[in-house]
Amino acid sequence: MNKLPQKTVERLSQYRRLLMRYRYLDKPHIFSKDLARLLRINSVHVRRDLMLLGVSGSHSKGYDVQKLIVRITERLECEKGKNACIIGFGHTGRAVLEILAGDFTPVNVKAIFDTSNKSIGHTFHGVPCHSMGKIAGVIEDENITLAILADMDEDPENYISLLSSLGIKGIMNLTPAHLNLPDNIHLEEYDLVTALIKLAYFSGIKASG
Amino acid sequence: MNKLPQKTVERLSQYRRLLMRYRYLDKPHIFSKDLARLLRINSVHVRRDLMLLGVSGSHSKGYDVQKLIVRITERLECEKGKNACIIGFGHTGRAVLEILAGDFTPVNVKAIFDTSNKSIGHTFHGVPCHSMGKIAGVIEDENITLAILADMDEDPENYISLLSSLGIKGIMNLTPAHLNLPDNIHLEEYDLVTALIKLAYFSGIKASG
Repeated sequence: MNKLPQKTVERLSQYRRLLMRYRYLDKPHIFSKDLARLLRINSVHVRRDLMLLGVSGSHSKGYDVQKLIVRITERLECEKGKNACIIGFGHTGRAVLEILAGDFTPVNVKAIFDTSNKSIGHTFHGVPCHSMGKIAGVIEDENITLAILADMDEDPENYISLLSSLGIKGIMNLTPAHLNLPDNIHLEEYDLVTALIKLAYFSGIKASG
Repeated sequence: MNKLPQKTVERLSQYRRLLMRYRYLDKPHIFSKDLARLLRINSVHVRRDLMLLGVSGSHSKGYDVQKLIVRITERLECEKGKNACIIGFGHTGRAVLEILAGDFTPVNVKAIFDTSNKSIGHTFHGVPCHSMGKIAGVIEDENITLAILADMDEDPENYISLLSSLGIKGIMNLTPAHLNLPDNIHLEEYDLVTALIKLAYFSGIKASG
């Protein structure tokens, strides 16, 4: 199947996430114009995306929500899910596990790695926490291809060549460190605390300006 | 004081976050070149930023970590902190509270708002959870200026004019909905689940490509 553009993947993910909520409501149908309105997307984009998925809606009721979810899932090939590990289990690591345990995502967390004896040997939401020294063995045993870097006291860059050699294909960097990654690893990153500091700083500027 | 550029605020926040960890180590000094290396920033930028803060380091030991933290805090004016509320207390809202409770941020969460009777009336990390109907009164009483939109069943846009009229100056949008905000509200946004779906999709492309 053709590779989808980044923006299309983003929109399909947004539709899916929104529809997952609607699933539980009394109305299992939605009009494309309502999907467009809720996500503030041009409705032409939405109709084009839904056409690309090969689903058609009814004039009177709109699109079947459950069918849409199934088609988007198939198109994003996320029904199987990819195996991931969380490296560093402080507040950020716990927060990510909380989100992953609750919401639909195409990511199955199979292992947590940490340096603290308080966490090592325990399971959290059913996921075992190992010492950092076990990274190589566990990633291979559990067929893990995604690494979520959360709370690390060390320079995360120190782990990149190891992770690359173990077949990690995607890294979510939630640490404040910048990473130099080889071309064969896809990177997504975000630092919520930095975003909150920016929010507080610039909203203060606006308040006094 | 002059308004700092966005990139400078980002770098200062990153220094601060990194230094907060170093505080607990045996070496309370750091060289600008190590700060640059850990954050993968040009060391010229780092030295310029530290000069702007008016701190000077020692040739043999580098910069005093605690002094640096104090100066950055003053410059970002985040020692007072701004009052915030979390709207929607599902997995994302809980994750944000977890991060805010654990890490330094210039944000004090004073209230949570939710629709679920399971949460309303209880406190979490010392923060009370109110019904959505109490938004106006609580935001005024607690002098709240930041709103973190987390897990909402409704269209978050429905709340924007209310939040604006109550004096909210900054919004962190963690929902998948796009927001149209008035000019006097600063926006930061992120959707971790969408980022994870992109990570899984594009790392799959790389794996098979």
